[in-house]
Amino acid sequence: MAEEKLKKEETLVMRLKLIGQSCKLFYSEDPVKITRARGQYLFDENGKRYLDCISNVHHVGHCHPAITKAASAQMDLLNTNTRFLHDNIVLYANRLAATLPEKLGVFYFVNSGSEANDLALRLAQQYTQHEDVIVLDHAYHGHLKSLIDISPYKFRKLAGQKEWVHVAPLPDTYRGMYREDHPAPGKAYADTVKDLIEEVHKKDRKISAFFAESLPSVGGQIVLPEGYFSKVAEYVHSAGGVFVADEVQTGFGRTGSCFWGFQLQGEGFCPDIVTMGKPMGNGHPLACVATTVGIAEAFTANQVEYFNTFGGNPVSCAVGLAVLDVIEEEDLRGNATRVGTRLMDLLRKLQAKHEIIGDVRGIGLFVGLELVTDREERTPAPKTAAWVVKRLKEDDRICVSTDGPWENVLKFKPPMCFSVENAELVVRCIDCILTGVWCQLIR
Amino acid sequence: MAEEKLKKEETLVMRLKLIGQSCKLFYSEDPVKITRARGQYLFDENGKRYLDCISNVHHVGHCHPAITKAASAQMDLLNTNTRFLHDNIVLYANRLAATLPEKLGVFYFVNSGSEANDLALRLAQQYTQHEDVIVLDHAYHGHLKSLIDISPYKFRKLAGQKEWVHVAPLPDTYRGMYREDHPAPGKAYADTVKDLIEEVHKKDRKISAFFAESLPSVGGQIVLPEGYFSKVAEYVHSAGGVFVADEVQTGFGRTGSCFWGFQLQGEGFCPDIVTMGKPMGNGHPLACVATTVGIAEAFTANQVEYFNTFGGNPVSCAVGLAVLDVIEEEDLRGNATRVGTRLMDLLRKLQAKHEIIGDVRGIGLFVGLELVTDREERTPAPKTAAWVVKRLKEDDRICVSTDGPWENVLKFKPPMCFSVENAELVVRCIDCILTGVWCQLIR
Repeated sequence: MAEEKLKKEETLVMRLKLIGQSCKLFYSEDPVKITRARGQYLFDENGKRYLDCISNVHHVGHCHPAITKAASAQMDLLNTNTRFLHDNIVLYANRLAATLPEKLGVFYFVNSGSEANDLALRLAQQYTQHEDVIVLDHAYHGHLKSLIDISPYKFRKLAGQKEWVHVAPLPDTYRGMYREDHPAPGKAYADTVKDLIEEVHKKDRKISAFFAESLPSVGGQIVLPEGYFSKVAEYVHSAGGVFVADEVQTGFGRTGSCFWGFQLQGEGFCPDIVTMGKPMGNGHPLACVATTVGIAEAFTANQVEYFNTFGGNPVSCAVGLAVLDVIEEEDLRGNATRVGTRLMDLLRKLQAKHEIIGDVRGIGLFVGLELVTDREERTPAPKTAAWVVKRLKEDDRICVSTDGPWENVLKFKPPMCFSVENAELVVRCIDCILTGVWCQLIR
Repeated sequence: MAEEKLKKEETLVMRLKLIGQSCKLFYSEDPVKITRARGQYLFDENGKRYLDCISNVHHVGHCHPAITKAASAQMDLLNTNTRFLHDNIVLYANRLAATLPEKLGVFYFVNSGSEANDLALRLAQQYTQHEDVIVLDHAYHGHLKSLIDISPYKFRKLAGQKEWVHVAPLPDTYRGMYREDHPAPGKAYADTVKDLIEEVHKKDRKISAFFAESLPSVGGQIVLPEGYFSKVAEYVHSAGGVFVADEVQTGFGRTGSCFWGFQLQGEGFCPDIVTMGKPMGNGHPLACVATTVGIAEAFTANQVEYFNTFGGNPVSCAVGLAVLDVIEEEDLRGNATRVGTRLMDLLRKLQAKHEIIGDVRGIGLFVGLELVTDREERTPAPKTAAWVVKRLKEDDRICVSTDGPWENVLKFKPPMCFSVENAELVVRCIDCILTGVWCQLIR
């Protein structure tokens, strides 16, 4: 297959004409054309190599041969829908079940994290027979109409807040209302949810679900304080609602120590619904909802079929199984811990050197570097963050992007095969950029 | 790859335990396990062959080698997201544009027909700044929350009808309010939409969109009367709304004579938004929204990004391109016309013989056979329809299913490589079943 079929200028002209402009390009002033990728590396049309620090979808590495092989073999054999019996879907569900607490034993396969969160909302509302949803501030749960409604990151720019949606403070101990000096920020933030529930009840409304990413991503690569989820779950359950953990960005071992992000909150905590997506198929459209027997039975009780045309097909499940195999065989969780720890150490050393680095946070290969113009005031430094992203691309061919409500957090969510050398390189490059020195590093 | 990894009984036990029961199985009393497929044939775990009359998703035939080859090659090379420039998405959009009227020149790629219809709804509401939607009775537009709201087939069993949704009569000239003896049923049915718009306006509400499948499928394999869409579009445009043609079931040449189902309504008609899905990727999760520059620009105006993680990735687009190639190279539209015509002829001869066949309708490889206990009263015969489906499976290993509000319409939407011999076989088998004779046909 020819890697490039059109000249870059022509691709860009056709793109601007044929594809909706709401679908934005990275580096919009000078977009990159990528024609090939392998592992943690992207290659442009001239064969120039970029180090990829952000493609969390390509979890086990771009174009991993084991995934391609599994997909091709199954595509050649069969790709029906779930109305026929097939082994792959049950074997895959069984493998996923083994990674989750026992009570999360029923699965629905879909095609995207958005489809998963939309279904989670349906399950929660059907089970509880309540309507209202509590979400965290700055959250993003997907591009569908129902999910824009529960995503403050989106609805504030669009249709606004619906009366059935309630926004709890983001438990951000660097920038939020309770910070690192608070004796028990987990409990304190959970109590804001308790207060919100009381307000909702005063309006004669009822909570169906509390939705949260296990580590809020768009919110700024946040690691939640200890004990937060357990306490929130207690309050939400008391109100008759369910707890939905959105693992679309954080699942499948990204944090290294745990397979699921919510497990960082301790063994005592278990959500009622878990949604998964991005890394699940290493780029293949595959996502899932895991839930309890009770919630699944309530959903079945109305006798209405749930049919998802492509969801759970034999090819998608073969891909999903292969991804799980590679995570284990290549010890990618171990790698995430080792490389993530080294990356965090180096970034903390950088913080000691550069006043502009306000915070370094994360776990495994989920890391954020927050830039501020004033450490005391914690004033966001989005311009410097954008400048670092641009310099990393242009000088060093390293892809990093920003996140957080003020777009001042450099985020690292690379493919899980990211190496210690990769981490060292990116930190050296950031050091040079922040020092204001252009240094040609040998790579 | 081993075709079967578990004994059928074990697969079934695991399925019942691990997969939400709302995901129903075909032939639920005695489900079929399929382990392999090719062209229009499915093979069970014992190698027994089934003729597939219903898998419209596997449009160019199950496991077509050209599709597997294209997917594998691209998977091995690159599978990023649309934030990087890539040739496949623009080449694919360009190929799709060539099949559509010129004004439908902007594309958004997504992962399922449901995602496409949800986005169509967002586009329509953003462009018109109106909220209300008119849909056809018995319509089904997808499994997402927003689409259940506009699918009478679903919302009647679930949350009920929202105040912003309005249901127009299904233009079914066999069973509807205006029938085959009406001089101008297209205009007459369109006028029901006009009346509905007037009612909506009286409530001080405004129409954002009219949504319809170009050939209503769940509604009972309906071919719409001449002139209906043009007249409806006139009324909807006058009310400031847009016309959305849902081609998820009917696009990509299924009708043979036209590439898109809406083109059956004549060259004078052009929708404002077209959604596509099922057959688009031959089983790969791929779907799309096509619209006008004006609607796309209105969607962009609010500066909010539309990002679909997997939508329009290089692998999905490579698969989509390969599907278009096979449709052309194997003249599958010509085949749909030839085989569909023969199938309709044979079914009409069967109708002359069997009182229970009330109607034969369709075009190309989109065909319905409506069973009635009384031709005069047109009383639906769902039990006989279910019995025919069961006998076809058990005696003849032919997969057919039912549709329509009364589940009395046998539907044929086979892979487009379905042959004249396949059509002759299935008609002979139905003849035997309806005659009450069990005939062992040599296949």
